[in-house]
Amino acid sequence: MTADSAQVIAALRDALGDRAVLTGADIPDRNKQDWSTLSAVLPLAVIRPTDPAGVAASMRIAATYGVPVVPQGGLTGLAGGARPIEGSIALSLERLTGIEEIDRDSATMTVRAGTTLEVIQKAAEDAGLYCALDLGARGSCAIGGNVSTNAGGNRVLRYGMAREMVLGLEVVLPDGTLVTSLNKMLKNNAGYDLKQLFIGSEGTLGIITRIVLRLFPRPHCTMAALCGLPSYDAVLSLLASARGSLGPLLSAFEVMWPDYWEVATRQVAGVRDPLTSHHPFYVLVEAQGNKDSDTEGFETWLESQVEAEVITDAAVAQSLADVKAFWGTRDAAAEFKLVLGPHSSFDIGLAVADMDRYADACRARLAQEIPGCFSCFYGHIADGNMHIIACVPGAPAQPYDAIDAVVYDEVRRRHGTVSAEHGIGLKKKPFLPFSRNPEELALMAVIKHALDPRSLLNPGKVL
Amino acid sequence: MTADSAQVIAALRDALGDRAVLTGADIPDRNKQDWSTLSAVLPLAVIRPTDPAGVAASMRIAATYGVPVVPQGGLTGLAGGARPIEGSIALSLERLTGIEEIDRDSATMTVRAGTTLEVIQKAAEDAGLYCALDLGARGSCAIGGNVSTNAGGNRVLRYGMAREMVLGLEVVLPDGTLVTSLNKMLKNNAGYDLKQLFIGSEGTLGIITRIVLRLFPRPHCTMAALCGLPSYDAVLSLLASARGSLGPLLSAFEVMWPDYWEVATRQVAGVRDPLTSHHPFYVLVEAQGNKDSDTEGFETWLESQVEAEVITDAAVAQSLADVKAFWGTRDAAAEFKLVLGPHSSFDIGLAVADMDRYADACRARLAQEIPGCFSCFYGHIADGNMHIIACVPGAPAQPYDAIDAVVYDEVRRRHGTVSAEHGIGLKKKPFLPFSRNPEELALMAVIKHALDPRSLLNPGKVL
Repeated sequence: MTADSAQVIAALRDALGDRAVLTGADIPDRNKQDWSTLSAVLPLAVIRPTDPAGVAASMRIAATYGVPVVPQGGLTGLAGGARPIEGSIALSLERLTGIEEIDRDSATMTVRAGTTLEVIQKAAEDAGLYCALDLGARGSCAIGGNVSTNAGGNRVLRYGMAREMVLGLEVVLPDGTLVTSLNKMLKNNAGYDLKQLFIGSEGTLGIITRIVLRLFPRPHCTMAALCGLPSYDAVLSLLASARGSLGPLLSAFEVMWPDYWEVATRQVAGVRDPLTSHHPFYVLVEAQGNKDSDTEGFETWLESQVEAEVITDAAVAQSLADVKAFWGTRDAAAEFKLVLGPHSSFDIGLAVADMDRYADACRARLAQEIPGCFSCFYGHIADGNMHIIACVPGAPAQPYDAIDAVVYDEVRRRHGTVSAEHGIGLKKKPFLPFSRNPEELALMAVIKHALDPRSLLNPGKVL
Repeated sequence: MTADSAQVIAALRDALGDRAVLTGADIPDRNKQDWSTLSAVLPLAVIRPTDPAGVAASMRIAATYGVPVVPQGGLTGLAGGARPIEGSIALSLERLTGIEEIDRDSATMTVRAGTTLEVIQKAAEDAGLYCALDLGARGSCAIGGNVSTNAGGNRVLRYGMAREMVLGLEVVLPDGTLVTSLNKMLKNNAGYDLKQLFIGSEGTLGIITRIVLRLFPRPHCTMAALCGLPSYDAVLSLLASARGSLGPLLSAFEVMWPDYWEVATRQVAGVRDPLTSHHPFYVLVEAQGNKDSDTEGFETWLESQVEAEVITDAAVAQSLADVKAFWGTRDAAAEFKLVLGPHSSFDIGLAVADMDRYADACRARLAQEIPGCFSCFYGHIADGNMHIIACVPGAPAQPYDAIDAVVYDEVRRRHGTVSAEHGIGLKKKPFLPFSRNPEELALMAVIKHALDPRSLLNPGKVL
């Protein structure tokens, strides 16, 4: 540790107290990396302020000494956005937790950034309301990370991304200024909508400390079906029909290709296949109803699709336990590590109509160009967002770069996006120009420079 | 005209052609002001480029000579955002019109910024899709203005503000750079979401030239009722019940206080009162259904509210003509000028529960502090957005400042917003600090300076 480093640590201890500042061997492994495939990095220190003022004080100290800061939430990111940088301070929000207020009249929740999504979902439910944000990592991810990466997840189709669920934000700027902008109104056009800058910018422009979330009425009932379909044309047909007949009740439309389905239902422990035979496509359709008769409407619609031979086979959830079991086939993706070992995960975006052609081309090239490469395809297809898992099972070292090259080259050819929901972080930086043109990249740099001229906040991430 | 001014005009004529550049007596009255109460201003020139490259070339010329530019759309704004500044170039998008593409698979429309909203609504309908943005000025307002002010309007409750309907944007920056970011995907987290900067910043950061709009499935049926209610508690009760029972089908919930109702239905030509008696509150409820039985569901719900004495009296639309006639009571606000003469219009935002107390306090203070002052209240109450019209009928000069002072002071006391949807422009600039704190205002200035360091684009507006 240099003399300068020692001074920074001392200043942080002075401001936050000893318990809030961890160094050297005291730094837990979890703070050294995220859920991406990137290797661990030991930061100069991990600091854990317990209130927004502590975050602001930390940032002011870091700015004084010119030390970079990497914000950390639940560390469940897949792009390396929260991985420490050597010589940086990892500022963890893990002790800035708790729900400050649930306002039933405004249907809002004011929450501290380190709170896990599952705690928020539960608290909303206990208050008779509904938090519409949901994703596989719900038990570990922090809401601050969800917002700073503009998380998508399972119900974007009906409720939008995290961006659409945020009404107000409090952030600490790179110079340590605390900007409290905890708006609770649905409509507020009084000047620039500043929160938009920080949502989805992956902690490179400010550190989110508190959030006002928009809550929704609790759905009266949830209907779900797992369907086997004969072709991708049938998938598109089912989607069009679901949009028309279920309208805004449609809350999820998850498509799984057979390569994914096999691993999820045959190899992941605790996941069962509710269908009796094999199919070229599997679709989990979910709708949330307002009244009892919506259940009947859902089943009638589903029957019409079976009769029209759009669906070959379907299992309809008879209980919330069934709904949960159906989602188990999708949530299984998080367990693929145990089955396949280390692998790459992707969250590309494309026009919905192009998805199957993409999967075919990508699968074929991966198999051809990378001997032994297994890939499987699934995701939030109705949102134009496909996930891919790829690896060479059993290989001593995974050919991550070669896999990236194929996956993103096929995205570029189709004018898609290299990240629909996980963000750019470190991992996708080389591929950002595949989805953004030079003028867009230059404008991003202008914004970064305006807010963080010394590049102290999460430097080298995204841009 | 100074020598410098003559040079700018010559350069613009050279770049755009003579027809695109109007000066002096050739400048139409309409380009000298908007629909606010501000007086007309003659700009140095009105220029009317016909393509994005022409807008970029114009901005480069303006930057070269250091001449400010004021972007103009349909000039229907109520805050003075598009009113020219003396010595400025008014850059009108009126010839940058037309729909470039409707993509049925992606449910998107790519449109030029000067296109009127009504043309867009019609084209979407012709393509079997639905443009969810709607507001009274639909026949005159331009989509570029709608987006640059983040317009709200009639169906925010179900579809969100203009911001939520924009997937991609093309803008010209103050230095003349054309940034083409015409994303058509619902989810795209590849770096900063740049369009958010330009949506709602009222032409102070860039000039919007093209827009990718998100379209929706056409509603299968539209149900509407005009209801008389006994109290504001009943209004809140009806809203809670509508949210619960109609869920996401609920598309509008417009409340009108009796002072508004009297003018709208007794004095505005062509508007009829569908109810038979007087009520303390009038509510227009609208829902959009996916199937025939939704109509029945709507009527059953309405009957339950009559039985519970939440509603005293209701007229239910039997046809689309009825739905249109009911909206006539709300659209009547645009005709109040003919009945009341010059007046102030407001678009304040508040917690929904506070609305009636606000109306009472504001009405009483206006009447007491400004002799002869008439005020009336109505608006998108479910969104937390109330409109107010106030004036001294027949006065030789309206006491605009005195009215502003009362209306905004009562907003400040209740921590509301001085603009829920119309924007700040020039008119509300003095009141922006009522709704934003010093840190927020300072951050807005940082953004403005980063994108427009010489303050060439719509200077003095918003900030």
